[in-house]
Amino acid sequence: MKQIRRNQNNKPSLYTCMSPALLNLYEVSSSIVVIIDVLRATSTIATALYNGAKSIIPVDSVAECIKLGRQMEVITAGERDGQIAEGLTYGNSPFQYPKKFIKGKVLVLTTTNGTKLLHMALAENAKGIITGSFCNLSAVCNYLVEQKHNVILACSAWKDKINLEDTLFAGAVISRVKENFNINCDSSKIAETLYYEGKHDLFEFMKSKDASHYHRLMNFGLEEDIRFCLTEDNSNILIVYEGGRLLAR
Amino acid sequence: MKQIRRNQNNKPSLYTCMSPALLNLYEVSSSIVVIIDVLRATSTIATALYNGAKSIIPVDSVAECIKLGRQMEVITAGERDGQIAEGLTYGNSPFQYPKKFIKGKVLVLTTTNGTKLLHMALAENAKGIITGSFCNLSAVCNYLVEQKHNVILACSAWKDKINLEDTLFAGAVISRVKENFNINCDSSKIAETLYYEGKHDLFEFMKSKDASHYHRLMNFGLEEDIRFCLTEDNSNILIVYEGGRLLAR
Repeated sequence: MKQIRRNQNNKPSLYTCMSPALLNLYEVSSSIVVIIDVLRATSTIATALYNGAKSIIPVDSVAECIKLGRQMEVITAGERDGQIAEGLTYGNSPFQYPKKFIKGKVLVLTTTNGTKLLHMALAENAKGIITGSFCNLSAVCNYLVEQKHNVILACSAWKDKINLEDTLFAGAVISRVKENFNINCDSSKIAETLYYEGKHDLFEFMKSKDASHYHRLMNFGLEEDIRFCLTEDNSNILIVYEGGRLLAR
Repeated sequence: MKQIRRNQNNKPSLYTCMSPALLNLYEVSSSIVVIIDVLRATSTIATALYNGAKSIIPVDSVAECIKLGRQMEVITAGERDGQIAEGLTYGNSPFQYPKKFIKGKVLVLTTTNGTKLLHMALAENAKGIITGSFCNLSAVCNYLVEQKHNVILACSAWKDKINLEDTLFAGAVISRVKENFNINCDSSKIAETLYYEGKHDLFEFMKSKDASHYHRLMNFGLEEDIRFCLTEDNSNILIVYEGGRLLAR
């Protein structure tokens, strides 16, 4: 009976994909895919676009970033091992993109995990691609509810290993939109449970769990970055991927 | 400092692999791999061996199960879609293997997710392979603490999709052994958090989350199977995989 009721209620489906290595298990071509890379790619993307960047072009290698930056005469950014990558000009911190600097500019950004996942979703003909982070949580949720399409919350993870912060963000979205979707997906139930445990203080939660990425960024002295990236709606705009660019909508 | 302390404390590592599709991310050859398939393969294996089965031979297809059963003149068992598979004699329920039936016998068992994962661990030259379920939780934990080797808690999942019950079991193990291991692994932190949320009543937790496998087995009328498989230490023996067979130790 329950199964029948589920299929008849006409709600779209929502799945959480906790690692890019699992994306092939989901029906990407019939879904809006939310690319999640909380520390720090999709948070920095939200911040830069919120502060007026014209567009952001995500690329997956430093070499391509340098090449495209030269061709287009635009800003290049990206880090490897916590340092600005050789040949690029800016890093991955949201604090590097205040309004007075980024407004009206195009940014070519190289990130490893998030960009790889975005290109995978593109190759699988996703119905739509948006980026999500705590920085633009409400905009993401409002859009997903309005669209009434199937959704995949796609975590960028770390070299395919599941991470805490992307899973927490998936849980945050689920906690807000779940009445509007069929969620027959244990990964989503796990993400939501995790979020309820951590939501009262996400930074303290990450710290108490000694999350691997928390640990890594703290070692680089980036506590303020982590705190910023775990703050809800500080750059609350919708970001869509269209024609090879990330744009504010 | 913390990183250095971690590397110097000489504890072995523990990782949780939430899906067979992620196993390649972990150093299998230097680890004891715990194969987890709570609903119901590794629970039924624990029960049958606890009740005196001589050994269990896990195979990954019905055809191989039939063939081996004939050659060895032993019991064959396995289900597909909740029914005893055609050509086999018994199913996947722990209640089918009481002492009076199974004592002294060899069982050839075909399961999809768990057997596939076990063979993957074998192909990657795991240092050791044991099976784990709530039914033999303490035996698993005691063994891991005694061995002082690196550990991978490997969830069988469902066709590579992460599931709630295997993750819960990984969390149960972690909650008991964590002081003895370095756990620099977000999947383990997620599993442990999930377990703390659910541990007071695992059945009610699975029900409240409408876990996909809970839902599936309830539709087959298998509530008692689920309750049994979520009960700690009801068949508390160590099970090792040696020479192609699962044996009680």
